[in-house]
Amino acid sequence: MKLQPRDRKHLLRAALGEVRCDLLVKNARLVNVLTGEIYPANVFVDSGMIAHVEYRNLEADLEKAEEVIDAGGAYLIPGFIDAHVHIESSMMTPRNFAKAVLPKGTTTVITDPHEIANVWGVEGVRYMHDASQDLPMRQLLDIPSCVPAVPGMENAGAAFLAPEILELSGLDRTAGLAEVMDFLGVAQGDQRMLDIIAAAESRGLYLQGHAPGQTGRVLSAYRCGGPSTCHESSSGEEALEKLRSGISVDARDSSILKNVESIWSGVKDVRFFDQLCFCTDDREADEILEHGHVNDVVRNAIACGMDPVAAIKSATFNAAREAHIDNLGAVAPGFAADFLLVDDLRELRPSHVFFAGKLAAKDGKLTAEIPDRSFPLEKRNSVCVRELSEEDFTLRVSLPDGRAAVNLLEYPDPVVPVTVRGRAEAAVRGGRILLEDPDLRYVAVVNRYPGRDTIGLGVVRGFGLRSGALASTVSHDSHNLTIVYGRPENALLAARELIRCGGGMCAVENGEVLYTLELPLAGLMSLLPAEELAVCSQRMKEAERRLGLTALENPLLRIVTLALPVVPDLKMSDLGMVDVLRKELVPLLAEEDARRER
Amino acid sequence: MKLQPRDRKHLLRAALGEVRCDLLVKNARLVNVLTGEIYPANVFVDSGMIAHVEYRNLEADLEKAEEVIDAGGAYLIPGFIDAHVHIESSMMTPRNFAKAVLPKGTTTVITDPHEIANVWGVEGVRYMHDASQDLPMRQLLDIPSCVPAVPGMENAGAAFLAPEILELSGLDRTAGLAEVMDFLGVAQGDQRMLDIIAAAESRGLYLQGHAPGQTGRVLSAYRCGGPSTCHESSSGEEALEKLRSGISVDARDSSILKNVESIWSGVKDVRFFDQLCFCTDDREADEILEHGHVNDVVRNAIACGMDPVAAIKSATFNAAREAHIDNLGAVAPGFAADFLLVDDLRELRPSHVFFAGKLAAKDGKLTAEIPDRSFPLEKRNSVCVRELSEEDFTLRVSLPDGRAAVNLLEYPDPVVPVTVRGRAEAAVRGGRILLEDPDLRYVAVVNRYPGRDTIGLGVVRGFGLRSGALASTVSHDSHNLTIVYGRPENALLAARELIRCGGGMCAVENGEVLYTLELPLAGLMSLLPAEELAVCSQRMKEAERRLGLTALENPLLRIVTLALPVVPDLKMSDLGMVDVLRKELVPLLAEEDARRER
Repeated sequence: MKLQPRDRKHLLRAALGEVRCDLLVKNARLVNVLTGEIYPANVFVDSGMIAHVEYRNLEADLEKAEEVIDAGGAYLIPGFIDAHVHIESSMMTPRNFAKAVLPKGTTTVITDPHEIANVWGVEGVRYMHDASQDLPMRQLLDIPSCVPAVPGMENAGAAFLAPEILELSGLDRTAGLAEVMDFLGVAQGDQRMLDIIAAAESRGLYLQGHAPGQTGRVLSAYRCGGPSTCHESSSGEEALEKLRSGISVDARDSSILKNVESIWSGVKDVRFFDQLCFCTDDREADEILEHGHVNDVVRNAIACGMDPVAAIKSATFNAAREAHIDNLGAVAPGFAADFLLVDDLRELRPSHVFFAGKLAAKDGKLTAEIPDRSFPLEKRNSVCVRELSEEDFTLRVSLPDGRAAVNLLEYPDPVVPVTVRGRAEAAVRGGRILLEDPDLRYVAVVNRYPGRDTIGLGVVRGFGLRSGALASTVSHDSHNLTIVYGRPENALLAARELIRCGGGMCAVENGEVLYTLELPLAGLMSLLPAEELAVCSQRMKEAERRLGLTALENPLLRIVTLALPVVPDLKMSDLGMVDVLRKELVPLLAEEDARRER
Repeated sequence: MKLQPRDRKHLLRAALGEVRCDLLVKNARLVNVLTGEIYPANVFVDSGMIAHVEYRNLEADLEKAEEVIDAGGAYLIPGFIDAHVHIESSMMTPRNFAKAVLPKGTTTVITDPHEIANVWGVEGVRYMHDASQDLPMRQLLDIPSCVPAVPGMENAGAAFLAPEILELSGLDRTAGLAEVMDFLGVAQGDQRMLDIIAAAESRGLYLQGHAPGQTGRVLSAYRCGGPSTCHESSSGEEALEKLRSGISVDARDSSILKNVESIWSGVKDVRFFDQLCFCTDDREADEILEHGHVNDVVRNAIACGMDPVAAIKSATFNAAREAHIDNLGAVAPGFAADFLLVDDLRELRPSHVFFAGKLAAKDGKLTAEIPDRSFPLEKRNSVCVRELSEEDFTLRVSLPDGRAAVNLLEYPDPVVPVTVRGRAEAAVRGGRILLEDPDLRYVAVVNRYPGRDTIGLGVVRGFGLRSGALASTVSHDSHNLTIVYGRPENALLAARELIRCGGGMCAVENGEVLYTLELPLAGLMSLLPAEELAVCSQRMKEAERRLGLTALENPLLRIVTLALPVVPDLKMSDLGMVDVLRKELVPLLAEEDARRER
């Protein structure tokens, strides 16, 4: 992809000095990520692009600009590029997301609208595209590759195959095929994945990868299948093997996972970092406001010992190359005029943020105008569920009163989202499974898409809920209505609340709604700006803590991966309990009782 | 561009270790240009690609290959990539060129068939493509962008505009738009160049540049116009400015110009070399045989002080990225299995050369079979000139007997191909200009293409020819029949000789042909293999030395740029003397005598 100037001929004349350019930023210390040098320079901008960088004669042509800004000796660095992000995970619309991240210096994001694609399909991706069309930042789209994540084990709101990829590649601002998560499918030559990859390659898209924990021959096969990046490295050893294997490492510090420190420890002795980038993946509004965005990730890398200029290069030029964007990520003629002024190369808090040659933010405040626009999809309720009753949340078995052994998913750790397969003894009364152990809870995953009527019921141990019910329509990756509860009446109340408001998260206790975080856009996103959303988010966290979820710093994250059947070992879906590695459904009753039931 | 395996599914199974792969090279010391590390490794190859690199357990899976080669601890490095070369300048066919460069370790060349395009147009480019179709090396084509080099100042055999670019982009193995030489046209927004660039960009081609000596705002404007590389840097300062300006530097050691040493002196303190590559541009058969090809250029850089691993990376991975080839230039899974075994990282003389996973050369000898194939174009005489007479080589003026002042092109230096505008007094006898000064010679440029009948006549000083006539159809870039001579009868003999044999170079003295280097293919290339051509080339050089051209180490190079109207100040074309910078024709007679003539 090559970014184009608004007016090529005017740009050329401005470069030659024949006409005034739009903007001159003088008296800067240029951080040239192309060479690694830092030197005094004046930067001339026109038609959205860098027209000329003058470093020999700093008094030359100072009058040849419509506007002159004196950098006062500040460092001038390229705007940050997020190599991989789901905007939906910020729970903000693309426009509100822009308002939040621009003051932090993020001028480009490579987005994967995977979440909304699972809800609204092609229409959802189009919405993310249209809603970011005229922003003072670049939201480039990678096309979701794995919708749903695990076909056959869950029902999402859409299913993407090669035709959907081809259709969406026609949008402006598509850069790649988004994180190809089905790494086994790719490595084993699954025809669906090969077709999707071939479709993307036929349109010149780069292939963004996703291979958590993969190593050795499986990793080699995955790379041979096409994907050339991965943002899932969690250990230094894993990251080093990926760099050696020709897989770009997008080092991630998300709200869920902080990987940068351990990655750096493993790769710091490497000589070439052409393939190292940074990403936020999933970062919530309050964390963006408090800590920052890509600048925070880069800051973390520098704090670990990475050289600041190399780290800035990773977050700019390297990321642009990874996404095959020719003229982005450096301050040089013909490159997009996205750049920042910063006083401190380790803190990276921009005093000025320029996008396409225009001031977009200053001293942490947005200065560019982002007019409100509304879209039909923002008002459409995506939670499509029939009238429910308590019966829908009751675990029934055809067994006489007594006891039964049930399979369940068990969290060994109160924080880590990994589960194992467990079992428990439960009482059977009137054909119902009754849970007596206070560490056991029911879980329901209610399909919320038209034409489906599936509800998966199961049992979970160690989730952390001590009372009431917790419900969420943010529930990766199918985003079905997921509820953890002790009593069906609480589950029903929480479900009805989210169906009413079009989705979000809801905490119920003793027949009363404690709090609802309303996310009416696709059941994933709020229409509120970051500052207001952060307040609501805090209140939701407080409500969750009241229900017992005190172990996690961010309790919102507990329920959202309970129905994610790509993270081992056992997860829930609207079809029931899923054995992730075997890709098969697991019955509620343990084998001996299942035989009794028959 | 992404290189594809012969059989994707087999490659994946081989990577997984489920089937035997085609080849295992074990016991190697891998030079991983992605990380800059060197470590012991076994490399598994299948379907033309690297399937897996094993470095943890060097005893694993040694039986899982159809063929096993023991590297004996040698370094294993990626095959070399020539970032910019005119195969025509080797005077060999694409197939014979491959035979010569493969044993030196060059497995990929980014070729610019600019020379044959000026002779045979689209058909010539198609020939270069078709003749390299099934070779055990990659000859990737950049589409010539400037045919002819200077429209209006010369007539070549073809003219390329946007439609020709679009047509040729449909060929397999097209990578980019070749060296965009009209740097002023680009910088000034000339519509012809903008259209050609837009056509190339619409097909996803990268834009190879050419901006000799350009600096400051003109260089910025050129970069804003699109081209992102340059192989014309001759000084270190020039190279450094280009790197800073986002222009990849293809450091060149050709038969004509050795730039690597001075470039390195200027950029050695830079921290990042992502944008540094190497190229040969124009290198003749004897030099390839004696000194090498890309390996020789890399060796020169290392001898200047560049780190060997960084230099190898420049000549492999960097060059692939410059040409936008995703999976080439590194030894990692999913990359093309082009690699070398070398015992010495500074000498870089490969003991084994593998192309697409097959042994192509060993111990300096070609082992792959390159069957002879013939093409109609190889037998077609491209020298299309009407019957000539001595009169055609006579400089006539409408002046009475006496003296006249003539404009001329003057070589201030016996070696450097740069000329200045000069003047001289000459005798006029019977309406003819007679040159008495032995340092003056006549020069004729005879258009050799159908439908044209133009002959440009002029005078040259300091060319170096002391007796006889020297003629060549290799005459950049239009490759018209160019002759330097003292007496018309010698010029006529030389012209007739080259018309007869379909082009080449010819030395005549005292009415006798001393030697003819026959280049029947487009008047540019021989059909002989390198070893035989080198002998003929030596004999031609000897003949030229006998005529007085003793100052240059390689006298063949003197005449070939005499009609190159992009190198200042004055050059010849079939239309006469050309003022290069003003882009205007210069009359033979100096102004006062021109007025007398009227």
